Amino acid sequence: MTVEADLISDGHGTLAADLLWRGFDETEWQRCPMKILDNDRWSASFQLKRIGRHAFTIEAWIDRFGGLVKEIIKKWEASVSVDRELIKGIAMVKAVVQHASVCHAGDIAGRLASLPETDLEHRYRILTDPMTIALMRACEERRFLIRSETVYPVDAERKAAGFASWYEIFPRSQSNDPSRHGTFADVIVQLPRIRAMGFDVLYFPPIHPIGRKNRKGRNNAVISGPDDPGSPYAIGAWEGGHDTILPELGTFDDFRKLLNAAEENGLEIALDFAIQCAPDHPWLQEHPEWFDWLPDGSIKYAENPPKKYEDIVNVDFYAGGAMPSLWIALRDIVVFWINLGIRTFRVDNPHTKPLPFWEWLIGDIRARHPEAIFLSEAFTRPKLMYRLAKLGFSQSYTYFTWRNTAPELKNYLVELTTTEPREFFRPHFFVNTPDINPLFLQTSGRAGFLIRAALAATLSGLWGVYNGFELCESQAIPGREEYLDSEKYQIRMWDHERSGNIIKEITTLNRIRRYNPALQNHLGLEFLPVSGDDVLFFEKSNQDRTNVVLVAIGIDPFNRQEVTVELPLRKFGLSDDASLQAEDLVRGVSFTWHGKYQTVAFDPRELPYCIWRVRP
Amino acid sequence: MTVEADLISDGHGTLAADLLWRGFDETEWQRCPMKILDNDRWSASFQLKRIGRHAFTIEAWIDRFGGLVKEIIKKWEASVSVDRELIKGIAMVKAVVQHASVCHAGDIAGRLASLPETDLEHRYRILTDPMTIALMRACEERRFLIRSETVYPVDAERKAAGFASWYEIFPRSQSNDPSRHGTFADVIVQLPRIRAMGFDVLYFPPIHPIGRKNRKGRNNAVISGPDDPGSPYAIGAWEGGHDTILPELGTFDDFRKLLNAAEENGLEIALDFAIQCAPDHPWLQEHPEWFDWLPDGSIKYAENPPKKYEDIVNVDFYAGGAMPSLWIALRDIVVFWINLGIRTFRVDNPHTKPLPFWEWLIGDIRARHPEAIFLSEAFTRPKLMYRLAKLGFSQSYTYFTWRNTAPELKNYLVELTTTEPREFFRPHFFVNTPDINPLFLQTSGRAGFLIRAALAATLSGLWGVYNGFELCESQAIPGREEYLDSEKYQIRMWDHERSGNIIKEITTLNRIRRYNPALQNHLGLEFLPVSGDDVLFFEKSNQDRTNVVLVAIGIDPFNRQEVTVELPLRKFGLSDDASLQAEDLVRGVSFTWHGKYQTVAFDPRELPYCIWRVRP
Repeated sequence: MTVEADLISDGHGTLAADLLWRGFDETEWQRCPMKILDNDRWSASFQLKRIGRHAFTIEAWIDRFGGLVKEIIKKWEASVSVDRELIKGIAMVKAVVQHASVCHAGDIAGRLASLPETDLEHRYRILTDPMTIALMRACEERRFLIRSETVYPVDAERKAAGFASWYEIFPRSQSNDPSRHGTFADVIVQLPRIRAMGFDVLYFPPIHPIGRKNRKGRNNAVISGPDDPGSPYAIGAWEGGHDTILPELGTFDDFRKLLNAAEENGLEIALDFAIQCAPDHPWLQEHPEWFDWLPDGSIKYAENPPKKYEDIVNVDFYAGGAMPSLWIALRDIVVFWINLGIRTFRVDNPHTKPLPFWEWLIGDIRARHPEAIFLSEAFTRPKLMYRLAKLGFSQSYTYFTWRNTAPELKNYLVELTTTEPREFFRPHFFVNTPDINPLFLQTSGRAGFLIRAALAATLSGLWGVYNGFELCESQAIPGREEYLDSEKYQIRMWDHERSGNIIKEITTLNRIRRYNPALQNHLGLEFLPVSGDDVLFFEKSNQDRTNVVLVAIGIDPFNRQEVTVELPLRKFGLSDDASLQAEDLVRGVSFTWHGKYQTVAFDPRELPYCIWRVRP
Repeated sequence: MTVEADLISDGHGTLAADLLWRGFDETEWQRCPMKILDNDRWSASFQLKRIGRHAFTIEAWIDRFGGLVKEIIKKWEASVSVDRELIKGIAMVKAVVQHASVCHAGDIAGRLASLPETDLEHRYRILTDPMTIALMRACEERRFLIRSETVYPVDAERKAAGFASWYEIFPRSQSNDPSRHGTFADVIVQLPRIRAMGFDVLYFPPIHPIGRKNRKGRNNAVISGPDDPGSPYAIGAWEGGHDTILPELGTFDDFRKLLNAAEENGLEIALDFAIQCAPDHPWLQEHPEWFDWLPDGSIKYAENPPKKYEDIVNVDFYAGGAMPSLWIALRDIVVFWINLGIRTFRVDNPHTKPLPFWEWLIGDIRARHPEAIFLSEAFTRPKLMYRLAKLGFSQSYTYFTWRNTAPELKNYLVELTTTEPREFFRPHFFVNTPDINPLFLQTSGRAGFLIRAALAATLSGLWGVYNGFELCESQAIPGREEYLDSEKYQIRMWDHERSGNIIKEITTLNRIRRYNPALQNHLGLEFLPVSGDDVLFFEKSNQDRTNVVLVAIGIDPFNRQEVTVELPLRKFGLSDDASLQAEDLVRGVSFTWHGKYQTVAFDPRELPYCIWRVRP
């Protein structure tokens, strides 16, 4: 963790500063000196030695002795008399040595005691000795000491908070038998297939009992048929609520077996944390004080005009009886699933709940379970999305799904990687979701799926696929960004060998991500010059540039592209006619590029992208 | 004063916000509603009705009624049922009307009383009536009301704080007789000449008694001769200190006569506020507790290595006996000169004095004398200069004197006019000072003086000339940025009709500034495309673009320039082949430019710049 600060003071006094840090639950600060970079900007780094919350702050003061030594050296080297300054300096050291208990103090005291009165050179040597300077920095009274008014929190999270490939399924659709509701046991059968594609996280929409009151029918119909399973987001029925499993999926024992099997397959299960309730959720009876009742004894159903959620009602976080009991109950639901072994939560619509609630809940959970990861599904305005990240969310859905042209993608990535949010906002690039059947994919054919997969997998450390994407599924409700026969309202079967699928390509992308640190977060990105408007050419590198990957993606799914790209030779300190060793990570061939300008061609009917690892 | 803020809240609630402001010495806030611009950015403006300090802050809350009305309108227009929402809205209005004492409340109450139960249209009309909305905004309880933790101060200053042309002289050099020390009476004789050049402010280095101990001789010699007058910056001798006038200059009566004469001539006198003392300043005897004495009973003289000021010692603001007596004494010196009629102070080296001192002194003075202007002579690092501006200084010296090439000038002006400091830092562009004989002018000849005058006079609302500049004086101590035979250490005579002078050109520049608001501050600047590296071409405009000035300046003092410039037709909403009416403000001729590209030529032996007022 590198911390920078602008530090200024009046006068000719020399500033010194320490960076102070500690675990959030510790009381003792550790400290290290800050160094000046340039233009009054200071910097220091500390290592976050464990996951969890840390705190840091800054102290600065006038370094009288350091300033005096600087002056003495300057004058000494210019052969200007420093008699007075040496006397003053020796007196300062003597005063400190008397009371200092640090090592070397005795040593310095001895050298001072035997100091010949007139030996300027000797005095100069003692005062400018790094040991003396270190002693004085440690022990001299710090004049005008000031500490930053703010103690800054910073969360260290486990690697998966920043680097993971997600796959989303509806467990109820996993039976491979259209007449039978899928179970956790059916999901276990799918695990090897999912892991083989290279995914790390398997994410389920809510697995709780589904309300029967106002249950939605197929394709979001307001009236449901007797066999319709309803939307899993309408949580709660007489069987139970957020701490209960839909009986059709299995028991808690079945769920534990699934978690074990997932772990054996190298997959982590992520659950949905969706706070809303079906109108028949037990809470409405047990905790009427958590809801905003209308005078006629009803509750307004949820809506986000023009969308209506007749099968859902919301709790009222600020209702008279909701604080703190509702907040604590919700926190305890998260703890409940953590105790079962869940460590990653995808949070539904966090921006419609109080910001202080999330700040408290995530801080509280992480204090005991620092491994907990929270993904914010806040499809809202940018400043609110960024605020949720500041408050503790590990990662967030983004606008990626709606950024298709080269300028749109570039502008968005430049915002994410070079402006303020780069310090605290981890983007999760989903190529599709049960709610988003992107218009681009509805008309792009297979090439479009390859393009979006390559963009997400190379531009972000976190990318996600909702099942069907790898099969190039794009059937939509006409004119809408929604899937036809959406799994949200019915059980679907998937033919995992459907022809034209892009399973092999996704598998390759995930393999390339795994072996190239440059692709394991969204930073270290630079867009490079390219001759065509429909090709993105960019470099991704890790911090020390030991891993540099170049990516070219044609974003037109219909037309062949042949463009000139400009290799970033200067970033390797090379001249324009130098060579670069390149390894085509998709095809596995190595070759040498000579010179700055190179031609690259794609045919979207084959593969609309190239990925190279390069080195000088 | 326009205030903008990012305001966000969780949930679907509708935000509302007020801007609150008051005079700093008032207790009652005035308020006006903020309006949303875009991307969660809100804005409101208030008028600073008098000079002096004001305060503002922001309140925001969830506007329940406003949000409901928005929802009702949205649904109404989409023909969605709003029966429930109308009932709720009417209930809210009724609850408020009962207790509201504002005008129109009775009117609305009457309309509600006569409301037919089933008349949806009527209900809708009442709820969406601007009068109802205004009533509810004013009287409804403001839920989740929050006020910014910070109360922001803002100073309104008189016009001269931002727009003035300064001229600096040493009064002792104004006798026109090398054998006689100049007096205030001699300065009076010069006033018409100075005013005729178009200057507004006449600034003197310190006018106090000059120390005799360690007095400097000519050209900064450490030993002075018996007739050497010494540096006026070595303030104080047996005759008195900072509240005393050097007897050779005249009496307080003479000084008052000068102030009256200056006012009659349309000139304001600015004095130097230099806190340092000569070793024989009375304070060393009267207030030994204000100084940092060495063990041998001496005081270290001032230095700024490698520069030495043997004739100056500094007070110690943090000495045991200095707080608050020294601080108050210094404040009272400013008050003393204000009571004599001085309203503008050029502050010597403020960055070497405590920042809290300036914050307190300027705040204290301005609370009683809001017309007081403080110019910061802080030639130090940018962040410290900007900090002094934030703390209250009206204006500041800058790096302008050392910015000569086109990229240097552009970068610096872009920083001053488009980054954060544009909100609080007013640059004062001095073309020279008694301390700075710019290297550029030492070799540029007359053309260089014209170039620097035109740059300063058109790029900044504040520009300054130290006398001699208009005579193209540039004789330097070889290899140094200092004047030979500097007036700082000796009395000089000036031949105001010296051949080759640029008095006429400066007069014209000041006249153009006076009649063009676009040139009366440094904002409203845009650099425009030009074909040559040695020509700056820029537009200056006032806020409503009723005054638009184009300036082209050739910055090479030796070579003729002929360049193509691109007129900013698009900024007038004009096409590339449109016409622009132009008035050459230097030559007084008017003409029409046809088309975007125009050729401009300068010969530095004639005039290296052009200034046009343009309109479509």
